[in-house]
Amino acid sequence: MRWEELTSPEIGALDRDKTVVVFPIGSVEQHGNHMPLGTDTILAHEVSLAAAGKAGNVVVLPPPWYGFSAHHMRFPGSVTLRAETLMAVAEDVVASVVKHGFKRILVVNGHGGNGGVIDVLASTLGHKHYGAARIVTLTYFALARDSIAALRQSEAGGMGHACEFETSLVQHLRPELVKIDRAKTIYPDPGSRYLTTDLIGSQAVRVYHDFGDLSPTGTLGDPSLASPEAGRNFFDGSVDALAAFIDDFRGWKIPEGQQ
Amino acid sequence: MRWEELTSPEIGALDRDKTVVVFPIGSVEQHGNHMPLGTDTILAHEVSLAAAGKAGNVVVLPPPWYGFSAHHMRFPGSVTLRAETLMAVAEDVVASVVKHGFKRILVVNGHGGNGGVIDVLASTLGHKHYGAARIVTLTYFALARDSIAALRQSEAGGMGHACEFETSLVQHLRPELVKIDRAKTIYPDPGSRYLTTDLIGSQAVRVYHDFGDLSPTGTLGDPSLASPEAGRNFFDGSVDALAAFIDDFRGWKIPEGQQ
Amino acid sequence: MRWEELTSPEIGALDRDKTVVVFPIGSVEQHGNHMPLGTDTILAHEVSLAAAGKAGNVVVLPPPWYGFSAHHMRFPGSVTLRAETLMAVAEDVVASVVKHGFKRILVVNGHGGNGGVIDVLASTLGHKHYGAARIVTLTYFALARDSIAALRQSEAGGMGHACEFETSLVQHLRPELVKIDRAKTIYPDPGSRYLTTDLIGSQAVRVYHDFGDLSPTGTLGDPSLASPEAGRNFFDGSVDALAAFIDDFRGWKIPEGQQ
Amino acid sequence: MRWEELTSPEIGALDRDKTVVVFPIGSVEQHGNHMPLGTDTILAHEVSLAAAGKAGNVVVLPPPWYGFSAHHMRFPGSVTLRAETLMAVAEDVVASVVKHGFKRILVVNGHGGNGGVIDVLASTLGHKHYGAARIVTLTYFALARDSIAALRQSEAGGMGHACEFETSLVQHLRPELVKIDRAKTIYPDPGSRYLTTDLIGSQAVRVYHDFGDLSPTGTLGDPSLASPEAGRNFFDGSVDALAAFIDDFRGWKIPEGQQ
Amino acid sequence: MRWEELTSPEIGALDRDKTVVVFPIGSVEQHGNHMPLGTDTILAHEVSLAAAGKAGNVVVLPPPWYGFSAHHMRFPGSVTLRAETLMAVAEDVVASVVKHGFKRILVVNGHGGNGGVIDVLASTLGHKHYGAARIVTLTYFALARDSIAALRQSEAGGMGHACEFETSLVQHLRPELVKIDRAKTIYPDPGSRYLTTDLIGSQAVRVYHDFGDLSPTGTLGDPSLASPEAGRNFFDGSVDALAAFIDDFRGWKIPEGQQ
Amino acid sequence: MRWEELTSPEIGALDRDKTVVVFPIGSVEQHGNHMPLGTDTILAHEVSLAAAGKAGNVVVLPPPWYGFSAHHMRFPGSVTLRAETLMAVAEDVVASVVKHGFKRILVVNGHGGNGGVIDVLASTLGHKHYGAARIVTLTYFALARDSIAALRQSEAGGMGHACEFETSLVQHLRPELVKIDRAKTIYPDPGSRYLTTDLIGSQAVRVYHDFGDLSPTGTLGDPSLASPEAGRNFFDGSVDALAAFIDDFRGWKIPEGQQ
Repeated sequence: MRWEELTSPEIGALDRDKTVVVFPIGSVEQHGNHMPLGTDTILAHEVSLAAAGKAGNVVVLPPPWYGFSAHHMRFPGSVTLRAETLMAVAEDVVASVVKHGFKRILVVNGHGGNGGVIDVLASTLGHKHYGAARIVTLTYFALARDSIAALRQSEAGGMGHACEFETSLVQHLRPELVKIDRAKTIYPDPGSRYLTTDLIGSQAVRVYHDFGDLSPTGTLGDPSLASPEAGRNFFDGSVDALAAFIDDFRGWKIPEGQQ
Repeated sequence: MRWEELTSPEIGALDRDKTVVVFPIGSVEQHGNHMPLGTDTILAHEVSLAAAGKAGNVVVLPPPWYGFSAHHMRFPGSVTLRAETLMAVAEDVVASVVKHGFKRILVVNGHGGNGGVIDVLASTLGHKHYGAARIVTLTYFALARDSIAALRQSEAGGMGHACEFETSLVQHLRPELVKIDRAKTIYPDPGSRYLTTDLIGSQAVRVYHDFGDLSPTGTLGDPSLASPEAGRNFFDGSVDALAAFIDDFRGWKIPEGQQ
Repeated sequence: MRWEELTSPEIGALDRDKTVVVFPIGSVEQHGNHMPLGTDTILAHEVSLAAAGKAGNVVVLPPPWYGFSAHHMRFPGSVTLRAETLMAVAEDVVASVVKHGFKRILVVNGHGGNGGVIDVLASTLGHKHYGAARIVTLTYFALARDSIAALRQSEAGGMGHACEFETSLVQHLRPELVKIDRAKTIYPDPGSRYLTTDLIGSQAVRVYHDFGDLSPTGTLGDPSLASPEAGRNFFDGSVDALAAFIDDFRGWKIPEGQQ
Repeated sequence: MRWEELTSPEIGALDRDKTVVVFPIGSVEQHGNHMPLGTDTILAHEVSLAAAGKAGNVVVLPPPWYGFSAHHMRFPGSVTLRAETLMAVAEDVVASVVKHGFKRILVVNGHGGNGGVIDVLASTLGHKHYGAARIVTLTYFALARDSIAALRQSEAGGMGHACEFETSLVQHLRPELVKIDRAKTIYPDPGSRYLTTDLIGSQAVRVYHDFGDLSPTGTLGDPSLASPEAGRNFFDGSVDALAAFIDDFRGWKIPEGQQ
Repeated sequence: MRWEELTSPEIGALDRDKTVVVFPIGSVEQHGNHMPLGTDTILAHEVSLAAAGKAGNVVVLPPPWYGFSAHHMRFPGSVTLRAETLMAVAEDVVASVVKHGFKRILVVNGHGGNGGVIDVLASTLGHKHYGAARIVTLTYFALARDSIAALRQSEAGGMGHACEFETSLVQHLRPELVKIDRAKTIYPDPGSRYLTTDLIGSQAVRVYHDFGDLSPTGTLGDPSLASPEAGRNFFDGSVDALAAFIDDFRGWKIPEGQQ
Repeated sequence: MRWEELTSPEIGALDRDKTVVVFPIGSVEQHGNHMPLGTDTILAHEVSLAAAGKAGNVVVLPPPWYGFSAHHMRFPGSVTLRAETLMAVAEDVVASVVKHGFKRILVVNGHGGNGGVIDVLASTLGHKHYGAARIVTLTYFALARDSIAALRQSEAGGMGHACEFETSLVQHLRPELVKIDRAKTIYPDPGSRYLTTDLIGSQAVRVYHDFGDLSPTGTLGDPSLASPEAGRNFFDGSVDALAAFIDDFRGWKIPEGQQ
């Protein structure tokens, strides 16, 4: 169910104990020469909608489209919110949903650059609405890391941005938006063994990287390995992981009291 | 053209002197018993896209969906940003677009409750980007006021919210989202001759009205007068008015200098 | 009654149900070669005081003098608050007045550049103090539009800033502050048929105009048509309109509940 | 010269090297049973205007009227800005004046409760405008402490608020605003030898005192010792002290460079 | 070298190309019945100082002590900054250090609750100081995860807060501050297989947990496995990992340009 | 007692009626050629700890180290918080302490540049926590002014910054941190008889002074008069004054009610 397509009485009639409300966020930013600017938001939204359908009793809010993309601004078309603006949007949307009595709210992020922001939001929103609702934040491809790792063909570093993973997904979901003939493969050098550019890589240190310093086209990785079939598999893996989490989340206890 | 569907190089190739960038905003809020929560954003977006197609050389940014809707929060499903959050979103999006060299940016609003915010934005953003870009803000149904007035059937007060006008438009554009059998007609009493609830009415005084005090269903006006045909006419009138303005705007001079 | 001239017990003794509290705001900004910088605040204050006397049971707060005047800063002597500073001042003053139990508060604005700010304030303050007080905002010359239109001699565009209207008013109220021999008549070209520079003109689009781009002296319109007699008439028309509104406002219902 | 009464060209013609711009601030708050709410602003303004006339080459900005008065809110009619709002107003006004090329700006405060705010402003504004202008902040009765101490009749504690000093000054300047028959004498007990309630007393520790805990009427001190003659003497002493400082300030060096 | 113990000329003489500046942050919050409130800051500071000595050419700023600890406030003695306050402190400190010409700044965090904040800071500060300095943020026990995992005796869930790891470290560094006889072992149930309470555990979802809901004493894990010897080993492992990273970081390239 | 060394249950067990909580603040900024950057915070902390020991029933919070030092930024090693950041830190720390039920909180400042900030904090925090706690702010050397004046040898102007007073104190408390052979004596000229650079001088006017304009080394005054013995005397005088105040403060009444 899409929140924006329901009427007010239909929202009013939903079972507050069973319903999980999903708030997808992403970004509008360069995705190489071959992929649409809206990739991250489109994917977070589509994964959310499909997982909602699979899990049932889920309503998906419309995505506010924009995210924290300061590191992509050298490339035309990238749009960035300040980190505090993105937090403010999420605070206001979540507060509105809590006001209507919903108890389990899930922020589904599709953009690596929003990672710190959603981590802070989990703390600040969880604290603010303690006793009324639980708010979980996650990045869908981190949640589905195991399935993605099993499906990928790229070597380490080959799946970073506008890469095998993202390109496959958009080829599966919105094939008309991919100009695959313009895609360039770039294995970037992040400059230190402590740093990785892999989408599902893991690193203990955080540092700012302008994507223009990593790649002339903005692509990190190897889109030549992408295909609609791979996209379907990545998509199914991501949706399954998210639907499974939603089923688990629905059973979480809401502590009582105020803070 | 939809900004989010273009690639970065495609945005990069657009002619900065000719291109007008449109940023549609609206709201997610109750629209009576019969209309979807996303009505205002859907309409602002669709009118923008159609006017873009008609005027040519226009790119339409994706809408951030949420607006200032504090006065609708008594009704389930309404979501509100604080006024300052909405301003921050517009500030960040516009700053990003200006950074990419675009010179004429048009905020197309579809929600009466955003009226003050877009008025302030015209001033603050125009001042901030003076010498680089001109930023215009407008509400599409105010721009098309004359054509709407000529087409409407409702008496004064009959066209306020989820009314003849909005219902017709959604029936025209997204008929599956209208539950017309649940629609209720309400001619609200705003409580003073200085106040009107008409969408294209005019009043010198500003005051806060909780919509729950004006109408038990949230509807202001007479949706029974709505029809898909009327919707097509309202839509064409709105699109024509917006496209005509865009043509004019494209020729506006950009003053030089900084402030 | 001037709030600042009363003692605390005198304020304490006022009837909370009958009293309307007026908060005049304006600006300190260039008014051509011939008019004082404080024109807008002086006029909003004088109109408020006279309307208060006429309507009875009204207390007028002292004006904070400064407004949003970024578009006048090229001219010496102009002073501007940021939009958010002006909002903060109004928020704090209104919150203080509500704390003392007053239920009807009217912001009377005398400066076009504050238009968006007072529109936002009506929404945010009305929401914040819902159930305790109603807050109305208006611009006095928009309220008195009809009477002004009937009295004016200038053609369209001849009454914008430091013009027939404002010059006449100051000649009537503070003649020693007008250097009429230095006045220049300017019919500015706003650059589009969608734009007007008329004080009581109406336009659907909002855009920032640096007054230095519209007029070399900062004057918009024709002060040569001004006279003290016209000023008295404009003043009486404005005061009558405001007093009539206050009488109406005094009867408005205060909804119960909180938000 | 009153800034608000000058035209823009008149401000433009002032000698930037010789002119000192004075920005008076005060408060709107209870002043006992017998004194007007606007006392502090009226006095800061009148002292500033008289000192301006005596010193020459001084322009006095209009006062924004409101100050930090949280500690008076228990008494009807008191109005308070948040500390940050008052700072924002002063920041914006000073920035505007610096933009017009003035190099020496003096904030003249007339309200003890603004003491911390003007101290912070001296630091933050002095830092911000380093190289362009020097900004001094002072409280006029602290500057004139010696002359006031010589003139006063009250014992320690007898001159705090709405007291011999302030009552005399208003009797001298605006006698119609003093209801001396309603005045009550209160020698408050601040509760510790580390604390004083004297207007020109000195104490190393800062603490919040609600005036309602110190005095049932809000008066601190002995207004029965007030007289118009004492008011004239207090006024002359205050004006002399301020004019002398302005003469000194006019000669202060403006460091070069930026920060 | 401790920044606060050096003189200004000594800081001035440091080689800007070789020097790494470390900014340790932690928290003041409950650490069970047996550990001091300052544990996290003490440990981040001590690890930083030892790594600085080992790596050479490192200056360690003094820690601001307080962190984001909203989830510990139910326990006496916990102190929390708002997330935005902690960010503001780091922004200001880093801006000051960059102003003095240092090019590599490392925020060493010792508190899990600060995790999101330092992630956001890496992005926002890296963006702000692009071209002048690189700013890295990390949590020392995440960096040393492998060595800690090899040394630990606790089962999964046994090392969360005031646990084997932290207790051992304080026993090693400040034994007088540990009241080991009051320690309680708690293996908390986080309520879902998606959640872990292990200090070096890994989870894709973020959610707020009040520590009072997880443990009656605030301890998560098994402090009975702690010992000073284990502490020395944990400490050496953490210091080695941090010193090794600093050596690597010192060689990172500073991109040119501005953003 | 040091707050950060206590366990949560130990804080929990303290008598809320008798305990005074001290929050020391200072700065990290140049102190001439011979003194450590951390001087102000070290001294505020040491004086607080010694006074706490002498007075009894006092807990000393750890200092956040950094203060408002914009006027020292020309000298390497100086670190400054914005004034609003320092306020935010104090607001959060004090709110946390009040939440744990403490009723008397004392901010002990050791840095002249924080003067305005702590004055504002006394007002804003006192207002916010009215009815729950009293918050006092002071600068320890202003509190001990009389004893310092009796002990000093420097002439007026000889005791400003990194001077006889501060150098003696650090020689007494942390002799290894003073490079006395590098000390330079500077009697600065503040440029007006209204200004003093003396640490315990008194002046009615506030103005920003970059220390680089006052002294080439950053020292204001005569460190050649410093000695460890003088340091012991200054220290004892400061501690005695603070302990005496704490004893008095402990008896202050907490007003009832809310604001």
